[in-house]
Amino acid sequence: MRKKNNLKICLTPDNFSNYHISDHTLVVVVDLLRATTVISTAFHYGIKEIIPVQGVDKAREYFGKENHIVAAERNAMALEGFDYGNSPFQYMNDNIKGKNLVLTTTNGTHAINIARKYKVITASFINIDAVLDFLISSSKDVLILCSGWKGVFNLEDSLFAGCLANRLLLSTYFETNCDSVLASSRLYHQSKDNMFNYLSESAHRKRLKSLNMERDTKFCLTPTIKSSIIPTLIGEKLVRA
Amino acid sequence: MRKKNNLKICLTPDNFSNYHISDHTLVVVVDLLRATTVISTAFHYGIKEIIPVQGVDKAREYFGKENHIVAAERNAMALEGFDYGNSPFQYMNDNIKGKNLVLTTTNGTHAINIARKYKVITASFINIDAVLDFLISSSKDVLILCSGWKGVFNLEDSLFAGCLANRLLLSTYFETNCDSVLASSRLYHQSKDNMFNYLSESAHRKRLKSLNMERDTKFCLTPTIKSSIIPTLIGEKLVRA
Repeated sequence: MRKKNNLKICLTPDNFSNYHISDHTLVVVVDLLRATTVISTAFHYGIKEIIPVQGVDKAREYFGKENHIVAAERNAMALEGFDYGNSPFQYMNDNIKGKNLVLTTTNGTHAINIARKYKVITASFINIDAVLDFLISSSKDVLILCSGWKGVFNLEDSLFAGCLANRLLLSTYFETNCDSVLASSRLYHQSKDNMFNYLSESAHRKRLKSLNMERDTKFCLTPTIKSSIIPTLIGEKLVRA
Repeated sequence: MRKKNNLKICLTPDNFSNYHISDHTLVVVVDLLRATTVISTAFHYGIKEIIPVQGVDKAREYFGKENHIVAAERNAMALEGFDYGNSPFQYMNDNIKGKNLVLTTTNGTHAINIARKYKVITASFINIDAVLDFLISSSKDVLILCSGWKGVFNLEDSLFAGCLANRLLLSTYFETNCDSVLASSRLYHQSKDNMFNYLSESAHRKRLKSLNMERDTKFCLTPTIKSSIIPTLIGEKLVRA
């Protein structure tokens, strides 16, 4: 019988260094509302590679570079002067096909950066089935890293992490001794019949609501597209795998 | 009408610095299994003051000092050479009356230390009613700080935090925009009819189980004593208030 792999969830990037994980652990970054959903969407609509950068200034260095789209979001708003923001709907067009996307967001790109010494992939409800198959077939330990909001726990990332963790444990190839897995997976069970309502009091839904982005939230929770692409960090870039 | 005060939960000490709280916020430290339960128990049985220290060496400095009991726990075990460990039952004796307790534990004393520039009190199920009344009458913002386990989320502290948060919100004197409050309070609702079973898969219950400390766990979750003492940090010491 195959040895079970270990599964953990880290609820915010600031706790990441307290997880003693091995060098061959796979880190699955999630920033459900909206960075990792945007990443899945952009790949689905034909983006070639994605360069996640932490600072807005770093993103600006790509202005005018051929075949590059530059996107920036801070505090849930697209930044002025940039081609795109952090709404998945902006990426549903043929214009992005074959281009590279430079992306900086409040939390998601920070989480990717913190984990970059490990093998990093990104997940959303768009590619969750493919991510599940990939993790099961990899036979490696898994840490799901929630991006949170400015260093603080958020509900939506933990619900997604709970959903993925739950399915990994059901596969019988994983085991866990991690309280974040228990908590996230129990919260997911409470929420799964209507995640949109379950999140109605959450801080980020209120934030997006006040910004009139309910449509984005609905798409991130129940996307109308599916993708088998596993965005995988190779060097500085997320590539299709 | 009285202005509502803000309520937040910080799930691990490492996230504490990301909470932008005002100087007059009350910080409620919880390390349910077992440090803050031990603190409540020791005060209930007559300890005069408690000196929480971070390092074992610092605790050793108090060896032989008149009227001082020195207690140390690491990784759920009492340390050799010390008078007491981290089991509440050790403190149920007349011998501690009027003495000072020097205490160092894996997580709880660390959390107290991190928050010491604010007004800090400690809470457990032993003094939860008194803490609730105190927080309501204080008319201040509240942050409940979970001690976690070595920088990582734990389930039991968040259940306690959820219980306290839930009661504070029911009082109508508090409001929240914090996802940790939502999550903890929903987890508490799931667990409240049988917290002991709910925690059966949690990492720390497994740890204590393997150390034969189920009795301690039951006491911490459903204590047989009640206390109206609010352990309050004044300088280096927790005093009765």
